[in-house]
Amino acid sequence: MIAEIIAVGSEMLTPFRQDTNSLYLTAGLNDLGVSVAFKTIIGDSISHLTNAARIAIARADIVVFSGGLGPTEDDLTREAAAVALGLELHRNPAIITALYKRYAARKIVMPPNNAKQADILDGAIMLENKNGSAPGQYLDTTITGPDGQAHRKIVILLPGPPSELKPLFDSQCKPRLAETLPPRYLAKRMLRMALIPESQVDARTAPIYQQYADVETTILAGSAEIQLHFLCAKPTLAEAQARVDELTEKIEHEMDDAIFSSHGESLEEVVLLHLGMRHLTLAAAESCTGGLLAQRLTAIPGSSRYFLGGAVVYSDSLKTTFAGTPANLIATYGPVSPEVARSLAEGIRARTEASLGIAITGIAGPGPGEPGPDADKPIGLVYVALSDSEGTQVKEFNLTGDRERIRWWATQHALEFIRRHLL
Amino acid sequence: MIAEIIAVGSEMLTPFRQDTNSLYLTAGLNDLGVSVAFKTIIGDSISHLTNAARIAIARADIVVFSGGLGPTEDDLTREAAAVALGLELHRNPAIITALYKRYAARKIVMPPNNAKQADILDGAIMLENKNGSAPGQYLDTTITGPDGQAHRKIVILLPGPPSELKPLFDSQCKPRLAETLPPRYLAKRMLRMALIPESQVDARTAPIYQQYADVETTILAGSAEIQLHFLCAKPTLAEAQARVDELTEKIEHEMDDAIFSSHGESLEEVVLLHLGMRHLTLAAAESCTGGLLAQRLTAIPGSSRYFLGGAVVYSDSLKTTFAGTPANLIATYGPVSPEVARSLAEGIRARTEASLGIAITGIAGPGPGEPGPDADKPIGLVYVALSDSEGTQVKEFNLTGDRERIRWWATQHALEFIRRHLL
Repeated sequence: MIAEIIAVGSEMLTPFRQDTNSLYLTAGLNDLGVSVAFKTIIGDSISHLTNAARIAIARADIVVFSGGLGPTEDDLTREAAAVALGLELHRNPAIITALYKRYAARKIVMPPNNAKQADILDGAIMLENKNGSAPGQYLDTTITGPDGQAHRKIVILLPGPPSELKPLFDSQCKPRLAETLPPRYLAKRMLRMALIPESQVDARTAPIYQQYADVETTILAGSAEIQLHFLCAKPTLAEAQARVDELTEKIEHEMDDAIFSSHGESLEEVVLLHLGMRHLTLAAAESCTGGLLAQRLTAIPGSSRYFLGGAVVYSDSLKTTFAGTPANLIATYGPVSPEVARSLAEGIRARTEASLGIAITGIAGPGPGEPGPDADKPIGLVYVALSDSEGTQVKEFNLTGDRERIRWWATQHALEFIRRHLL
Repeated sequence: MIAEIIAVGSEMLTPFRQDTNSLYLTAGLNDLGVSVAFKTIIGDSISHLTNAARIAIARADIVVFSGGLGPTEDDLTREAAAVALGLELHRNPAIITALYKRYAARKIVMPPNNAKQADILDGAIMLENKNGSAPGQYLDTTITGPDGQAHRKIVILLPGPPSELKPLFDSQCKPRLAETLPPRYLAKRMLRMALIPESQVDARTAPIYQQYADVETTILAGSAEIQLHFLCAKPTLAEAQARVDELTEKIEHEMDDAIFSSHGESLEEVVLLHLGMRHLTLAAAESCTGGLLAQRLTAIPGSSRYFLGGAVVYSDSLKTTFAGTPANLIATYGPVSPEVARSLAEGIRARTEASLGIAITGIAGPGPGEPGPDADKPIGLVYVALSDSEGTQVKEFNLTGDRERIRWWATQHALEFIRRHLL
């Protein structure tokens, strides 16, 4: 069975807006063993939409529409699907009543055009929408193809807002699809690694995962992180889980402590977990990253137990004020130096009385009045220092890319530094 | 003239990856007066791809393919376009030579499958790719439709990586398309507003922009910001610019100081510009936003001249350590209180000797060990205080949404507070 997803809405044909529902729908369909073979994005034109619906119904077994179910004259998905399928729409009185009640509860008279939301394809099941006014529709039908043969087609109409589409798809479409598809149990795992080249991960893991033809392995790289996704479908969950776990274990053995997460946690979460397990606290002094490290850690609920906070010591004088770094040390070695990084880490630890102090200083990019690159100190030079009761370590990194990338990678190195230190 | 964009690659039919090239291509085509009517996303299957190519060539005047031009057996765009157009591919010797040289420069022998990158559609112009190995192709041709009439079709093949696609499209496709399309001059403007409901912006501006039927107005809402985009095409640039400027001026008059930017600058940039114009400096004490405000400001090149840094006072003890907020004040009023916000703003200003001190304290979400909501202090309650030599102001906000949203809106309110104070 292959599926096509049709995202309906002229706004998704502008440079400003993009279809995102299809990612969610694809994940759900894949869970059921259905591949998405085509995605079409189409505007609110009845001729274009009918044309796209005809093509989709001809080439896919399952066609999922998102959007175009509202009350306005631009909402044409119902009409286009009806024409493409050669079916009539009939107005469902129960839906009309529900719409009137919905408006009455808000003390508004229902505008008459709303009634078209009650138009249901002949033979379709109405999918009640608790989060909006337009119901979805689910049609399981048989059409005669150009080959003269009967073909089973499932056509699903879903409202466009993700807050309406997702619950409708999960609670009312997936169970119906599952009934009509061969039973299938899925096991999934994900391993995450930071700051390691994709080519290296692939070279070391491919000889292992290639032995598991029944496990689908996907390597995703981005933002100084590599993710390995494993997916296996079997007639029983136990079989699927056993295969995925066996492969995951072998890869964990090969990649060892490069793996920071084997159950999906982010690097920030893992660092906080390690701090928590050891009853330690952390504080940060950030220069070039300007608060990005603190922001990443504090984005995690519960982080305040282990991350105390710290200082954004963007100007040299604040390095002295908040971390006690002597002005003459900065003058002698420059703000971007291993000496200043060390002093910041030790200073922030002392000021905050945290168990661990982390400091980042570097050159994130050119800017008027900012520490500029020179022959010795190019853009991308970053020092990260980590201080605890045993002493202080400093690492040097030479990062590439623009300001945003250098800042992100610097915080990634800082988090990985802490994680490996706590192992 | 209408266009279809076909994004080729099986990875874009997974839940993990999405086509983004089409947003860039759409903006470029819109500039030329071409609307995008269809977008298709298709995997690396020769039958699916040929089918999609046939459909696109039938229904659109301009068809732009992105991806599928590499050297692997999964790269099938050239072949599918050839079949769909009824054209042959011929291998271009100049491209073969260039490919050999490219490999020789890296001291690698070229794998033989690379040669297929030199296959050019009969009649197509080869588009030299300085950032990768696969050249693009530009074909301006005439086909006979099912109606027996001749139809002009422009078919463009571009490599998938954005770093290759964008320069190829801009430098080699847009000029060619412009030659074949009616001359058209575009003027654009954008106004940005923070923290104002979209419905209010629309209610106040629609009576104005609706009088300018020749200016395309788009309202985009998101992330505590509203953008108004204006676009006008005329036979001369002066006419187009005059219309857009006239409309922009009227809207600026209506919305007055709600507009923070009339030339596209971000709110962070505008705040830094205002500080710069007045020779002022800023420091921040952040509790619930945990460094997000500092991170946003320091993301702007040159920010260090006006933003000194500050403290992430996530734990109560650091509020005392870094901003001098008395422990008994925190004990009496709680960390989320106007009194503590005021003390943090005044304290951070004094410690850093900045002209302005800004402080944010609030309840971003539930978390073990974090200040929890209670009857008086619900999730989303945020205080922002701004202190300067004249005194200190405190504002209270009741924000909604999840942790991430509350933190973002809190920083947006802080930036807008500073901006309006400096007006």
